[in-house]
Amino acid sequence: MQIVLMSAHRIVVATPAGYTGCGPTSEDRDCVLFAERVEVRRNAVEKRLRHLLGDVRGAPLAPVRLAEAMRYATLGGGKRFRPYLVIEAAALFGVTEQQALDTAAAIECIHCYSLVHDDLPAMDDDDLRRGRPTVHKAFDEATAILAGDGLLTIAFEILSAPAAHPDPAIRAQLVLGLARASGWRGMAGGQMLDLEAEGVLQDTASIRRIQALKTGALIEFSVDAGAILGCASAPEREALQAYARAIGLAFQIGDDLLDAEGSPEQTGKATGKDAGAGKATFVSLLGISGAHETLRALGSEAVSALKVFGRRGASLEEAAHFVTSRRS
Amino acid sequence: MQIVLMSAHRIVVATPAGYTGCGPTSEDRDCVLFAERVEVRRNAVEKRLRHLLGDVRGAPLAPVRLAEAMRYATLGGGKRFRPYLVIEAAALFGVTEQQALDTAAAIECIHCYSLVHDDLPAMDDDDLRRGRPTVHKAFDEATAILAGDGLLTIAFEILSAPAAHPDPAIRAQLVLGLARASGWRGMAGGQMLDLEAEGVLQDTASIRRIQALKTGALIEFSVDAGAILGCASAPEREALQAYARAIGLAFQIGDDLLDAEGSPEQTGKATGKDAGAGKATFVSLLGISGAHETLRALGSEAVSALKVFGRRGASLEEAAHFVTSRRS
Repeated sequence: MQIVLMSAHRIVVATPAGYTGCGPTSEDRDCVLFAERVEVRRNAVEKRLRHLLGDVRGAPLAPVRLAEAMRYATLGGGKRFRPYLVIEAAALFGVTEQQALDTAAAIECIHCYSLVHDDLPAMDDDDLRRGRPTVHKAFDEATAILAGDGLLTIAFEILSAPAAHPDPAIRAQLVLGLARASGWRGMAGGQMLDLEAEGVLQDTASIRRIQALKTGALIEFSVDAGAILGCASAPEREALQAYARAIGLAFQIGDDLLDAEGSPEQTGKATGKDAGAGKATFVSLLGISGAHETLRALGSEAVSALKVFGRRGASLEEAAHFVTSRRS
Repeated sequence: MQIVLMSAHRIVVATPAGYTGCGPTSEDRDCVLFAERVEVRRNAVEKRLRHLLGDVRGAPLAPVRLAEAMRYATLGGGKRFRPYLVIEAAALFGVTEQQALDTAAAIECIHCYSLVHDDLPAMDDDDLRRGRPTVHKAFDEATAILAGDGLLTIAFEILSAPAAHPDPAIRAQLVLGLARASGWRGMAGGQMLDLEAEGVLQDTASIRRIQALKTGALIEFSVDAGAILGCASAPEREALQAYARAIGLAFQIGDDLLDAEGSPEQTGKATGKDAGAGKATFVSLLGISGAHETLRALGSEAVSALKVFGRRGASLEEAAHFVTSRRS
């Protein structure tokens, strides 16, 4: 097993050959190294978001409350899974963490906005998120709506600013990709369909389609953003797209399993909601063991798509293992 | 008086020298020509928006309801004042209507999203907009939140796509400018401050600051977007910024006057709300005649800023006259 240690960033790469599974009971060193790597990325993203969502006090009559709500919604929690994908996909092509950080932060802002709006009383009506009161509970509904709007908008501000990438053609491409992934034909459209699907009998194909928009589109774009930053070739980009499609679907199945099997302490949000609402999910359609089986198959599919990158694909492979065995 | 007729677009330019005032009782030919010009732009923008917000049916499990709500919020009404500013400012530099149309449409999408979210029960709680039920009344709250999100997002999709401008550096600049104007330090921040200001004693400086963010920022960016599309020189851009600041403020004072003096039939929305809510406005601070006087001064300021453009500035001058004497 080859382990590369880059002391400057405390980055550890465990090669695919050395991977021995990362279940909750595993004490394997690779898991520790992967966890450390995730933590390094998470800290970098957190620090950057803290800077980008910096204090507005000082300006005359600054919208301090709005800025506070935006920071509350974004900082101090979250797995930073999408930023991890951006940074690791970009790293395949020699792009440094620093060079990918603003794109990663922008995508995280979109993710956080979607959580704030989805939690609103008129939508999923959730009181708990990441173990804390949701934004409309901690502030109020108007502030939560505006905080979501602010986070959605700042994502495009971050992505179109020169700090995101020196080449404006890359920046424009990133903006276009993010807007498509998160808008009416992407994430927002998926949330609409998901709301409409409540109480309506769904088949697996419909659930797949809804989740491909609601959750999959942004996860897929996170990986694609890394490819864009790295100026990937067409076959490399396609391989990453296949990988991203598999983990995007796996992520949602994992979410459904956590809702069915997990506890609020574990997930930081209410669980058992889907069954309570009589909502069709992958778990209700495939059963618990069927869902686990599909997860495993998707994990293999994701890992297989990475073959073209050889050993360089190790960290994305770890991400696939995380998605298919996550407990939070 | 020089009148230029361009038959291809049915565009009519009345020179500043020929302008004789455009009050509601005026039968002056220039007013008719200005109205015709506004109508031409409005139709072009309407047609483009209709295309950009085109039907999603046909795609499997498309979010039809969301697309309908987005179209309802955007099409079939509205003065298209911001698109007019984009197109006319760009025209100063020889940019055609066609070349400015997507930027104009993107800004209108942002404006329409802000109306949808501001009308929500948790915000301004309005039932009527442009003479029709607001989006959350015609659909429901969840759909209105998502339609706003969809419109906000599609603005950046439109602006970053090659159809907006062939040069990606211009597209990235437009995205950055629009995000700044509409986000937490712009329009969304202004709405937050406006909500917080309810029932709080305000002075004119505070109201000016709040309105500069809430209404002014997007109007200013509309003019600036035209300058960006036209690759304006620094002095030209500054002149346009001075013009835009004046009409942005005038626009809000006009809004406050309409709320105080107008009727729902005239404005297409509820009136008398500010006084009813005990809200400080330019009218409550300056009085009706003081507000009219400030409007006139701002009109002169705007017209004066256009002097650098000579006769070419006629259509923007007309827009300033419209803002300072509007009845809807």
